[in-house]
Amino acid sequence: MASTNPARGMRDFLPADVRKRNYVIGIIKEVYESYGFEPLETPAVENLETLMGKYGDEGNQLVFKILKRGEKLDLENAKTENDLSDLALRYDLTVPLARVVANNKNDLPKFFKRYQIQPVWRADRPARGRFREFYQCDVDAIGSSSMAVEAELISAVSEILTRLKFKEFIVTLNHRKILTGILETSGIEKSFHVETLVSLDKLEKIGEAAVTNELAEKGISLKSILTCLQFINRLRSERNKQLETQPLEDANQETISKLRSFLANHDEGTKGVAEIDQVNRLVNDNGLESHVLVEPSLARGLSYYTGAIVEIEPKEGNFQGSVGGGGRYDGLIGMFGKEQIPACGFSLGLERILVVMEERGMFPPEIAESTPADVMVMLLGEESTAESLKLASEMRSAGLRVTVYPQNDKEDKQWKYANSIGVPFICSITEEDMATDTVSYQNLHTREKGRCSRSDVADRLRSKSLIA
Amino acid sequence: MASTNPARGMRDFLPADVRKRNYVIGIIKEVYESYGFEPLETPAVENLETLMGKYGDEGNQLVFKILKRGEKLDLENAKTENDLSDLALRYDLTVPLARVVANNKNDLPKFFKRYQIQPVWRADRPARGRFREFYQCDVDAIGSSSMAVEAELISAVSEILTRLKFKEFIVTLNHRKILTGILETSGIEKSFHVETLVSLDKLEKIGEAAVTNELAEKGISLKSILTCLQFINRLRSERNKQLETQPLEDANQETISKLRSFLANHDEGTKGVAEIDQVNRLVNDNGLESHVLVEPSLARGLSYYTGAIVEIEPKEGNFQGSVGGGGRYDGLIGMFGKEQIPACGFSLGLERILVVMEERGMFPPEIAESTPADVMVMLLGEESTAESLKLASEMRSAGLRVTVYPQNDKEDKQWKYANSIGVPFICSITEEDMATDTVSYQNLHTREKGRCSRSDVADRLRSKSLIA
Repeated sequence: MASTNPARGMRDFLPADVRKRNYVIGIIKEVYESYGFEPLETPAVENLETLMGKYGDEGNQLVFKILKRGEKLDLENAKTENDLSDLALRYDLTVPLARVVANNKNDLPKFFKRYQIQPVWRADRPARGRFREFYQCDVDAIGSSSMAVEAELISAVSEILTRLKFKEFIVTLNHRKILTGILETSGIEKSFHVETLVSLDKLEKIGEAAVTNELAEKGISLKSILTCLQFINRLRSERNKQLETQPLEDANQETISKLRSFLANHDEGTKGVAEIDQVNRLVNDNGLESHVLVEPSLARGLSYYTGAIVEIEPKEGNFQGSVGGGGRYDGLIGMFGKEQIPACGFSLGLERILVVMEERGMFPPEIAESTPADVMVMLLGEESTAESLKLASEMRSAGLRVTVYPQNDKEDKQWKYANSIGVPFICSITEEDMATDTVSYQNLHTREKGRCSRSDVADRLRSKSLIA
Repeated sequence: MASTNPARGMRDFLPADVRKRNYVIGIIKEVYESYGFEPLETPAVENLETLMGKYGDEGNQLVFKILKRGEKLDLENAKTENDLSDLALRYDLTVPLARVVANNKNDLPKFFKRYQIQPVWRADRPARGRFREFYQCDVDAIGSSSMAVEAELISAVSEILTRLKFKEFIVTLNHRKILTGILETSGIEKSFHVETLVSLDKLEKIGEAAVTNELAEKGISLKSILTCLQFINRLRSERNKQLETQPLEDANQETISKLRSFLANHDEGTKGVAEIDQVNRLVNDNGLESHVLVEPSLARGLSYYTGAIVEIEPKEGNFQGSVGGGGRYDGLIGMFGKEQIPACGFSLGLERILVVMEERGMFPPEIAESTPADVMVMLLGEESTAESLKLASEMRSAGLRVTVYPQNDKEDKQWKYANSIGVPFICSITEEDMATDTVSYQNLHTREKGRCSRSDVADRLRSKSLIA
């Protein structure tokens, strides 16, 4: 007998799981739509050539490839994977977005604001919290270089976290041009920047000494490394000291003015400081002053960012790490077309948000303790089956969720089943009810029983206040 | 430059498409949940062995297979497709359901009522209205043999069609045991039944002579074929005649009593008649008497049905064909376990429903003419950007969907853009507004302009009644 487990790294979502996922997705959608972002959906399957070469060597390895079919599959002469495959599974939501933008140039507005919440697939080694099928919730604003875009995106993401009842979260902010400025001013050559940013991203995790070693091994001069790290570390430690007595917004202003001095002779860096200053002011003015932290060591691994970069970290309980992030990437959306198109976007990791919310019991009771129905109608015999189904329809018309016990079993068996699925009420039409056009009901929480006319039953059950 | 089209047979859904799809999916969910059905989701990717052999030879060919990865892929020694592949894309929602039921025996209720709305993938030749990625909307009630299950499913599907504003639709009803009875009573041997049902399913389309030929070529005796077809055709023509003057429910009663006489000496057939009679009465009593048609030629192609079978056909305009169907299949859900489990379910074809609704203009105006936002806030200069973003936040808190024009372009450029994306209102904070804490607005439909205090603006725009 074949295994009945889902495939490795994949998950089935039973009803209680789906409800929790849909609750979070629903709030994400609602907030993004209130900001004027529009929904986009792309196919799970893309042409292989659309995806190949877009995610680096490591990414290429992790793309699920689909076998060619019929005559196209030439098993005998196939030499490489690409001879065998013509399609692949969606690996992220950014490359499909770029393809859609190129393919629908004339149908999309000049500023295309879209959100997209769909699964992606990666042939990663499964681990705790790492799956081969997982949802991404992307939001991107395409077509403008204005910092108002960054500010609106940070507002939207913050509102999502607030609506999900995350009380303490930090939106960490930096800028790729600031990083470029710091690196160049420290004497680190441009050719080393990508690797340096990857190492710098680990500063918090592995510490200064380890980062220094990593960079020195790559051939960067020790003097440059030390200049760079000392500057960043001094900034951070002074900032942390300041935070003991002063609010975040003052510390951010201080960080920004120190960056401005350090980068005074670096045009690109100076531009980065001006932009981050602007974003910081706009979001502070919009009520986020206690959530934004300007952090010069934030680097983000991906190579395609060109401007502001952002990471979103809940600080609930003992959760460590980010639930999302993003930034400006002015060179990527144009990859399938002729012109460069400015763009800025964030991605929220649904799976990580769900883990934190589950651990911290953050789901509202109607989601956490949801039941398949508000009422179960019992079936007490052939004669009353039709009336019982009608009763169920009537209660549904009155707005209740009603399940019908499907067969004429003994009453106590039906009663036990109702308790096992957690419905708060049962209703039935007894012989007496048939004669008097009434319904018998029981509240399964209090065990209270009652009888009322059929036209009143929905209101009666609602008044027992177990049903919204 | 690579193609920017979606892969063959796959589709991108731009915002207007997604809204229409979500509107229909939303109603399907709402109705199924009001009947106590619970949501289930399974992974897009299944183990190859889970899917192979479940869909017949033709189905096996149409399954998208995923290439093995890393060391598992032994290109040199691979002799067959199955040496190259270990995973496959979901082909329907029934096999995954059977797997989930077997895998979660102890966690699922005895009567598991689930709905599942997810895409499936088939490597079919794409054609008009036929795609390689398409959504199925399945609903199944597992664990009971009672005809109350069939009745509730028919009610639910009918309610969905009614809520979607299908006025004329027919739920065609038959029973596999009735078909078995007719075939055996006509002298057609059991070994020919599957093929006979496939031919019979085409009766309406290709006519009696063609069906007779098909069956005779298979080696069935002409006498048996004629007995069978004559009985069915007489029943149908008498029924159609009756329908000219009498209501559906009387015609159905007549059909049922003729089936009862014809099958009087066939136990299984008699049982089928009793069951169809019961289903028909239950749904008629529940208000569907003008939508149900008992139709002895309805066969449905799939081999796994064991009881009642159903097809759902809208009769709006010139649309021909079904938008869904299903029936009882008591032998299938147990395929991954040891015990047989009774089950009955329907599948709605989202893509076909959407085609009919699009052709007939059946979407409500708020969906058909949806805009990305209710209001666009203009940006009139650096000094007022922060206040403009705050204004947007305030209007969102008041329940409006608000998009912000992202940069400080000339006013007429912003105005044109607002018109191009179809928002009904624009708002802006002019220099004067900055001084007096007011907002300027314009209704883009009537061109009417106005000014009011910031705290009143959401109510003011709502009173202009272009926003829900």
